[in-house]
Amino acid sequence: MDKLSLQNPLFATYVIAASLMILKAVAMSWLTVVRMMQSNGGFRSPEDLRQTLFNPTPRPEQLAIDDRVDRIRRIHLNDLENLPFFLAAGFLFVLTDPSLWLARVLLYGYVVTRLAHFVAYLTARDHETRALLWTPGSLILIFMSCWALIAALGA
Amino acid sequence: MDKLSLQNPLFATYVIAASLMILKAVAMSWLTVVRMMQSNGGFRSPEDLRQTLFNPTPRPEQLAIDDRVDRIRRIHLNDLENLPFFLAAGFLFVLTDPSLWLARVLLYGYVVTRLAHFVAYLTARDHETRALLWTPGSLILIFMSCWALIAALGA
Amino acid sequence: MDKLSLQNPLFATYVIAASLMILKAVAMSWLTVVRMMQSNGGFRSPEDLRQTLFNPTPRPEQLAIDDRVDRIRRIHLNDLENLPFFLAAGFLFVLTDPSLWLARVLLYGYVVTRLAHFVAYLTARDHETRALLWTPGSLILIFMSCWALIAALGA
Repeated sequence: MDKLSLQNPLFATYVIAASLMILKAVAMSWLTVVRMMQSNGGFRSPEDLRQTLFNPTPRPEQLAIDDRVDRIRRIHLNDLENLPFFLAAGFLFVLTDPSLWLARVLLYGYVVTRLAHFVAYLTARDHETRALLWTPGSLILIFMSCWALIAALGA
Repeated sequence: MDKLSLQNPLFATYVIAASLMILKAVAMSWLTVVRMMQSNGGFRSPEDLRQTLFNPTPRPEQLAIDDRVDRIRRIHLNDLENLPFFLAAGFLFVLTDPSLWLARVLLYGYVVTRLAHFVAYLTARDHETRALLWTPGSLILIFMSCWALIAALGA
Repeated sequence: MDKLSLQNPLFATYVIAASLMILKAVAMSWLTVVRMMQSNGGFRSPEDLRQTLFNPTPRPEQLAIDDRVDRIRRIHLNDLENLPFFLAAGFLFVLTDPSLWLARVLLYGYVVTRLAHFVAYLTARDHETRALLWTPGSLILIFMSCWALIAALGA
């Protein structure tokens, strides 16, 4: 069967997990926008202090770090450190033709733990909780990359 | 036809858009280098203050934030938040076999709005202009990811 | 032959280089964790100052920038600026069916120079050394992207 066909359940599993993670990352950009509007601050560029329709009364403090905005930026950076590599590793992994149940456990497991990590970070849980929810995703990344590496070296 | 052949106009469209966006991101690294040399500052690592051939007269201020360098770093970070996900979403999207005109509108439209966003950010236009040029790209990302997700769920 | 088969030496070359680079990026997350534990600091979120099992005696200074942790964060950011684009560009490049020796030189050459760049950054070598080891990887990225772009435009 065509490896990249959506009729191939392995590839369909990858596409579902990958699109959800892309949407998650894009959502962080919009959440940053929402919180900048709510806080009316947390901006980053000097030009954001110009008087415009959306910022009728600029104040220098709008360029200061805003806790609510900065939390989303940290979550976003954590996504940038993880999701692009998940998108690549998951793709290489499904191309090695693993069993479907293993692919589902790893790919959907990654999605679930990343969403749980997001909730824990957003609601400022203890570092331990955050670490506990970040770790499985990172181990899945390592597992899938090693799996692909070994398959390619042994081919 | 082979989905990943350049003879396939859908895939060729993706490759053109993707390579342009990769080159755009890489160009930000070089632009950072150029501006660090012009400003003779905006460095980030303590060791960059050592006296060397390219930095014959080091000064502590070289580690301070330099506005011209920092602007490129912000643009670069914005690229990191967007382009890797475009590269993945565009790939998944063309694999669902959409119509060629739709693929061209979305993929080339993304490239054009990202380049316009870059110019607006580089020249410090109002936040509104920047937001207006960032939004279409983000909506295209969301559209392509949802499209791939729905296709995979319905397969 | 199936372009995405590991029996295809071009694709196997890509998978080896790509998985090594994914593992490299993931290793930076773990190295950050190791150094945060060693320094007992370099944290980023206010909630990391709560008294917990792993942080029995919190101090406000734990949120200050820690040189040893921050170095890894800078290396990690440099990876984010480079590796996702390598993963995409290398994939597009091998799909254009280049000669195997060229693919091996570029893909393995990228891996080797990135690892050397990591060592130079980690051990705080002069900026010149770091730049010298960063440049080949960036040129390889540009070469592979231009190659794919020209192949797609000429198809």
